[in-house]
Amino acid sequence: MVPSPNTHVGFNPFYRRDVLSILDFKKEELEYLFQEAENILRDPTKYRDVLRGKILATAFFEPSTRTRLSFQSAILRLGGSYLDLGELEKSSIAKGENIADTIRMLDSYADIIVIRHKLEGAAKFAAEIAENPVINAGDGRKHHPTQAMLDMFTVRRLKNRIDGLTYGVLGDLKYGRAAASFILALSIFSPKKIYLISPGLLRAREDVTSILRERGISFEEVENPSEVIGELDVLYVTRIQRERFPDPSEYEKVKGSYIVDLKLLRNAKEDLIVLHPLPRVDEIALEVDGTRYAKYFEQARLGVPLRMALLKLVLEG
Amino acid sequence: MVPSPNTHVGFNPFYRRDVLSILDFKKEELEYLFQEAENILRDPTKYRDVLRGKILATAFFEPSTRTRLSFQSAILRLGGSYLDLGELEKSSIAKGENIADTIRMLDSYADIIVIRHKLEGAAKFAAEIAENPVINAGDGRKHHPTQAMLDMFTVRRLKNRIDGLTYGVLGDLKYGRAAASFILALSIFSPKKIYLISPGLLRAREDVTSILRERGISFEEVENPSEVIGELDVLYVTRIQRERFPDPSEYEKVKGSYIVDLKLLRNAKEDLIVLHPLPRVDEIALEVDGTRYAKYFEQARLGVPLRMALLKLVLEG
Amino acid sequence: MVPSPNTHVGFNPFYRRDVLSILDFKKEELEYLFQEAENILRDPTKYRDVLRGKILATAFFEPSTRTRLSFQSAILRLGGSYLDLGELEKSSIAKGENIADTIRMLDSYADIIVIRHKLEGAAKFAAEIAENPVINAGDGRKHHPTQAMLDMFTVRRLKNRIDGLTYGVLGDLKYGRAAASFILALSIFSPKKIYLISPGLLRAREDVTSILRERGISFEEVENPSEVIGELDVLYVTRIQRERFPDPSEYEKVKGSYIVDLKLLRNAKEDLIVLHPLPRVDEIALEVDGTRYAKYFEQARLGVPLRMALLKLVLEG
Repeated sequence: MVPSPNTHVGFNPFYRRDVLSILDFKKEELEYLFQEAENILRDPTKYRDVLRGKILATAFFEPSTRTRLSFQSAILRLGGSYLDLGELEKSSIAKGENIADTIRMLDSYADIIVIRHKLEGAAKFAAEIAENPVINAGDGRKHHPTQAMLDMFTVRRLKNRIDGLTYGVLGDLKYGRAAASFILALSIFSPKKIYLISPGLLRAREDVTSILRERGISFEEVENPSEVIGELDVLYVTRIQRERFPDPSEYEKVKGSYIVDLKLLRNAKEDLIVLHPLPRVDEIALEVDGTRYAKYFEQARLGVPLRMALLKLVLEG
Repeated sequence: MVPSPNTHVGFNPFYRRDVLSILDFKKEELEYLFQEAENILRDPTKYRDVLRGKILATAFFEPSTRTRLSFQSAILRLGGSYLDLGELEKSSIAKGENIADTIRMLDSYADIIVIRHKLEGAAKFAAEIAENPVINAGDGRKHHPTQAMLDMFTVRRLKNRIDGLTYGVLGDLKYGRAAASFILALSIFSPKKIYLISPGLLRAREDVTSILRERGISFEEVENPSEVIGELDVLYVTRIQRERFPDPSEYEKVKGSYIVDLKLLRNAKEDLIVLHPLPRVDEIALEVDGTRYAKYFEQARLGVPLRMALLKLVLEG
Repeated sequence: MVPSPNTHVGFNPFYRRDVLSILDFKKEELEYLFQEAENILRDPTKYRDVLRGKILATAFFEPSTRTRLSFQSAILRLGGSYLDLGELEKSSIAKGENIADTIRMLDSYADIIVIRHKLEGAAKFAAEIAENPVINAGDGRKHHPTQAMLDMFTVRRLKNRIDGLTYGVLGDLKYGRAAASFILALSIFSPKKIYLISPGLLRAREDVTSILRERGISFEEVENPSEVIGELDVLYVTRIQRERFPDPSEYEKVKGSYIVDLKLLRNAKEDLIVLHPLPRVDEIALEVDGTRYAKYFEQARLGVPLRMALLKLVLEG
């Protein structure tokens, strides 16, 4: 969206607003969003025609089946429809078109643009060009605001609160976009403590931890999840990719410590919840799926009502 | 769908049922389905909003334009909408996700899943995981139940009955999924006789013919279609792929016998109908298209009302 | 569409008509179309349900994101929906199906087919096979009628008329489909003069210029846009592809002359409008985007209402 950034219409703080970073949102605004998602969960049929006639365009310059389908499902559930830019190699980008012209095109054809791109700032750039609202479905290494929203929404639903809990964020905290986004989202709330659990090579970057420091969030970096598992209320797991390690033998040494399995969970609190942005590969053992801890499938499921709430608030007058 | 398998609600035997193999259905159930398809053909506008708000997900792990578009057209004609998993290489599968997690994802986003996969049992596996109904759009070498349903529906429409007719099934009966599914479908009815017409190398497998035997269906295996063409009421043609033959010269020897052309049809009954699941390559000569025998395009066309009927019965209360 | 070609129902000259070449349309028919597009622009909400239940199939045998999405957006804005054949390599074409069978399939599944193909005559061939109307979204080197329609509509909207103006058509006039289609469209009206501006190697083909001659349209072929820029009311820019030149050094010599930049526009009329079918690469400098001349984004935007008007007229009784 181009000009007046936060056009608050009535009490809806999302109306026609771009969604670029979770840090752009205040706690109360997120609460407002979660409330709308709760309303939708309570009676989805009431929302069946709310966005009739509205078109959402998905522009995934980097593939992500899950996020793309989640947004498409959300707009359909609200009575709208979608267009998909399709594969990069087949698109006008392949003919040499600049991304600004591609965004202008989508802006002509749709009412809202959902973009994913590997470069940080791509969504912001798109938002500066488009007249319609733009939603960042992941760019660079840090921003994936709708994932962070649904993660927070899941915690709130399952634990009845976000504040005052102890969180573990496990995996590749350096390059993992969902993990960084989750940590930034926590900084908007008042967690009791955050454990950043990763191999030394994959520690959270300074631009993320500095925000925790500024906001006075208590956190601690640890290498071994088994040291802290007993303290956690929420364990947020992400993938560690072998390719991140310059020396493969280095990876082989640590990888066992970062697989969440029954052995690790033996010392967990009874009401620990394990989350994961998905897709997972083997960082959560399949044996965990049947346990009371496993909440990642429910989390994925909540992506649809959360995104429905967001689309509705952004697009509806 | 997960728990109670055949939840018959009222008299609709399809409600919330998985559609995995044609063998799961009784003759009366198929008749019920065909009746619904007839109703749709009579007045399609009455069905325009029957599945409004419902989402169908297509998950084609093996490409099939025709079947995918036929299902998508069917859900649109009923007022619903679709999501498409997209290409395998671009999906979360490529990131290493297991198929169970992919199915769970689709199950969260849609109300019914249509799956095609090269491995036998893939659809059944998906159905065990998904809470929503799953339709097998082809897996392994034997099952393609909605193709079989539309084939039977076509025969019934064009010949006024399925029982008591003489059928020829021609082509690759060993690896051809549509041919196997058609033969299995016939075993539910009471054909007068089935001629299984194929080169020796591509004869129907024992797991198919044993069902004919068990059910007391009269059949005979022949190599040359010209020997039996005069007896047939229905000729079901499928492709013979050169690659099936270890020795290419072997293929060259037989291939002429398996092309349906005017010469072969010279001895056909006047009211023979020729069917083909399509796409065809050259197993039916183009010169046949203009003859009264050619019913494969009409057959393809009937795929939409048949699938509309199925989707309606499975999804509607 | 198969039989009776121009079934005029009432006064709507588009009803159930194939749209294959801009030359098939008379001036009054195009005016009728433009009027409908104006009505849509005035009150788009009135058209939200006009094509409810109608399905448009896009069959792009040659990729074109922009045209595909423009048609899909148009059908959605009218309350209809779309199916997409998908990529050639993944479609049944890859299994060896002939294009006629593919078209028959789409004809069964949809109410209108939009086709793009690299071979001239592909759309006409499709129209002969399909019972439903076919729209040519570009085939061969000459025909792209809906692009020509939206180009004319843009001129009419921005200059209040098409007749009596001086046009420059710049770029690859030999192979460029949009340029040829634009020139042919002008031949239906009464332009004051057309300058065909291209390197000698890429001059408009005889089959295009002969039509201008036949219809008594004044035109002149020039090599250097700066010679004529001061006379133009409309400058239609298209890309010059390096690959067209047998000798790359030949290309390097001319390319500078065919970039529209502020320097070239220094001598332009105050109310010149610059159009481009998009995507552009570097034939219009980015510095032009902010000038009053730049109308190519508005032109792209008008593609949706123009195509909405066309779909509505072709499909609605």
